[in-house]
Amino acid sequence: MAKAAEPPSGTRDFLADDVRRRKAAFDTVSGVFEHYGFDPLETPAFERLEVFAGKLGDEASALIFKILKRGVHEATGEADLALRYDHTVPLARVVGTYGSQLPSPYKRYAIGPVWRADRPAKGRFREFTQCDIDTVGSASPLADAEILWAIHDSLAALGVTDFRVLVNSRKALHGLLEAYGIAEERGTAVLGTLDKLDKLAADAVVAELVDRGLEARVAEELVGDVTAADTDRVRKQLDTTERGREGLAEIDRLLELTSGLPDGRVVFTPRMVRGLDYYTGPIFEVVATGYPGSIASGGRYDGLVAKLGGPDLPACGGSIGLERILAIQAADAEATGGLDVALTVLGAEDIVMRMAADLRGQGLRAGVYLGTSGKLGKQLKWANDQRARVVLIHGPEEQAEGEVTVRDMASGDQSRVPVTEVATRVREHLGR
Amino acid sequence: MAKAAEPPSGTRDFLADDVRRRKAAFDTVSGVFEHYGFDPLETPAFERLEVFAGKLGDEASALIFKILKRGVHEATGEADLALRYDHTVPLARVVGTYGSQLPSPYKRYAIGPVWRADRPAKGRFREFTQCDIDTVGSASPLADAEILWAIHDSLAALGVTDFRVLVNSRKALHGLLEAYGIAEERGTAVLGTLDKLDKLAADAVVAELVDRGLEARVAEELVGDVTAADTDRVRKQLDTTERGREGLAEIDRLLELTSGLPDGRVVFTPRMVRGLDYYTGPIFEVVATGYPGSIASGGRYDGLVAKLGGPDLPACGGSIGLERILAIQAADAEATGGLDVALTVLGAEDIVMRMAADLRGQGLRAGVYLGTSGKLGKQLKWANDQRARVVLIHGPEEQAEGEVTVRDMASGDQSRVPVTEVATRVREHLGR
Repeated sequence: MAKAAEPPSGTRDFLADDVRRRKAAFDTVSGVFEHYGFDPLETPAFERLEVFAGKLGDEASALIFKILKRGVHEATGEADLALRYDHTVPLARVVGTYGSQLPSPYKRYAIGPVWRADRPAKGRFREFTQCDIDTVGSASPLADAEILWAIHDSLAALGVTDFRVLVNSRKALHGLLEAYGIAEERGTAVLGTLDKLDKLAADAVVAELVDRGLEARVAEELVGDVTAADTDRVRKQLDTTERGREGLAEIDRLLELTSGLPDGRVVFTPRMVRGLDYYTGPIFEVVATGYPGSIASGGRYDGLVAKLGGPDLPACGGSIGLERILAIQAADAEATGGLDVALTVLGAEDIVMRMAADLRGQGLRAGVYLGTSGKLGKQLKWANDQRARVVLIHGPEEQAEGEVTVRDMASGDQSRVPVTEVATRVREHLGR
Repeated sequence: MAKAAEPPSGTRDFLADDVRRRKAAFDTVSGVFEHYGFDPLETPAFERLEVFAGKLGDEASALIFKILKRGVHEATGEADLALRYDHTVPLARVVGTYGSQLPSPYKRYAIGPVWRADRPAKGRFREFTQCDIDTVGSASPLADAEILWAIHDSLAALGVTDFRVLVNSRKALHGLLEAYGIAEERGTAVLGTLDKLDKLAADAVVAELVDRGLEARVAEELVGDVTAADTDRVRKQLDTTERGREGLAEIDRLLELTSGLPDGRVVFTPRMVRGLDYYTGPIFEVVATGYPGSIASGGRYDGLVAKLGGPDLPACGGSIGLERILAIQAADAEATGGLDVALTVLGAEDIVMRMAADLRGQGLRAGVYLGTSGKLGKQLKWANDQRARVVLIHGPEEQAEGEVTVRDMASGDQSRVPVTEVATRVREHLGR
């Protein structure tokens, strides 16, 4: 394939099957979100560059696709716009833009592409779909619980069966460090190390903690606590500090408010940290058998909307890793979009066009042969390529009798019926 | 509104109602296209800049949004990517990229945003949705007819009622000029002037033709012919040249192949030219009562795919002006997305969450109060803002009895039912 003919590095063309499969997944998820009373939001593909200024860290800023000024300003080589990097910065802007015109709290979902100039790799793209659900303007634990339910139901609706929602609380994590007498300023680094427990062995994490200045005994106990099968050890530690108790209460409240979900689905997981440090309350991560890494995550991030330039409102939300889920599910996906009926063309084209219209009017996917061959064999090959289930033949003989031959492609059975009865016979073959 | 808070010039934020209305329209149209056996295609938001090089005219090229190189190359001020300007250039690339992997002919539709750095104006945006349907690889008149049928059915499905499909042929137009002895090299200019007949008075067009070097008598007769209520005058002229007869045959074939559409829907319209000069065969344009300008258009463009860098394949297609249609229909659109059920929260939140889950499981849109007020009055105001049709109240009294109060917001009727019967009662109120 010549380079010029490929889509740009890190992007993909989605042909028929892919588009249909992706759209079905997006519709499934948005359907669930709608039932929870979340509203869709679509912001432009690009924002003014200044909207991002100082909002993202250096690492993220380097990944922004910038758009060159236009017309006489093009020659300056300066940019004034940037492609959407995520759905969160636009959300903060929109909350600022529309304020009281939005429902309160503002519960919105966004399913759409974002662009990041990341180094392309297997499963990592420069254009990919993010699926976010957030509630801005509610500090209620019910809002956290609702996000969790909505994501749970979405995953179930997507056909993910064997999964667990790991929950924890940033407050609990900080309380735990306090209980171990770990200084506040070391907190983020220590939590960053604990976050590696799903990839590294426990003793490697202990070693890293010691490197970070923890006493060996403290590091061992801390790791022992958070990885214990029984959460009682952590609960006891948390109970010794104010923040720990607050965090624990938050977790227990979330467990209570999601007790209507299947048993064992939502699990307090002390070692689950979430890398991003903007979370302020409950956090969660979803892991599923057969899927690498986490397939959804989120939490409460009360200061973030203000930090991103919006009003100072409490907020919580989550994200579903739709691309990751779609990549796994694509493996056993079936081909879509075969024709219900293929109409061959052997003369009397206007009658064929009317028959096709009639079949479409009945909700069937009907295609007419558009090639140049007048040979039935070639046309049947086309019908077969189109994965047609039924083929109509309207040759000179049939025309003379005002009839059509209806052929079932699976069984090879065929029979002639009057033109007026074609639709009925076709539906019989299709079992509809 | 502070400038920084607005979406970039020429772009729009789509809030809940807009997203739902637009999605419904896109789904309606793609549903029709699917029934015709067209496949969806989604290409990246940007292409390599070289894909556009020399493919668009100067005017169009000036409207391309270019993306700055990244990393160390950013400082060069050079661009290497460009936002999608239309769906046709990517189609030509895709046909080149995937070749025989695609069905033959390749019937595809694309409904998605394109970006043009046009001067923003009322109804003209820098980010807008284009809706294209094309068949690449068929020279059959059935392919032209099919595009026309599919667009016809889409418009009808969108609720456009009073419309006509004007058809003509580029061959016929050139044949007509030949019949009047107008030199080939003047052809494009003369046709460009005739194209103004839907905006200018006939004598103004005659004057412009004379300016272009036509004899007054010829200009008058030509304009008289193409604007005559009866097409017989033009038919007679067309019959005098080879190309004219070819064009006429093309038109008559299209009329015959679309004779299954309602009477008078498809009309041979000699004065309809279509501005773009890449058309090579039949052309069409759809006009509708209540909609300014044309709401759909298209035609056969046999040389274009090769010119755009794809293989040399015959092709035809059309475009629906969805943005234009949506803008008109928005005026009488109703608000969408009100809640079916609003659940107030006066304690026992876990029971409320379970009730909400149960209602959602039955396909209802259910929202739980996430605010801080414990007062029923405030919560009912919230429910009203959410356009909830039914409200559930589960206060201390109801809790003690294991019951819930179900209130119909329209009638104000309310009654108490056991928790287990809530869903049934709610559905009764909703009539579902």
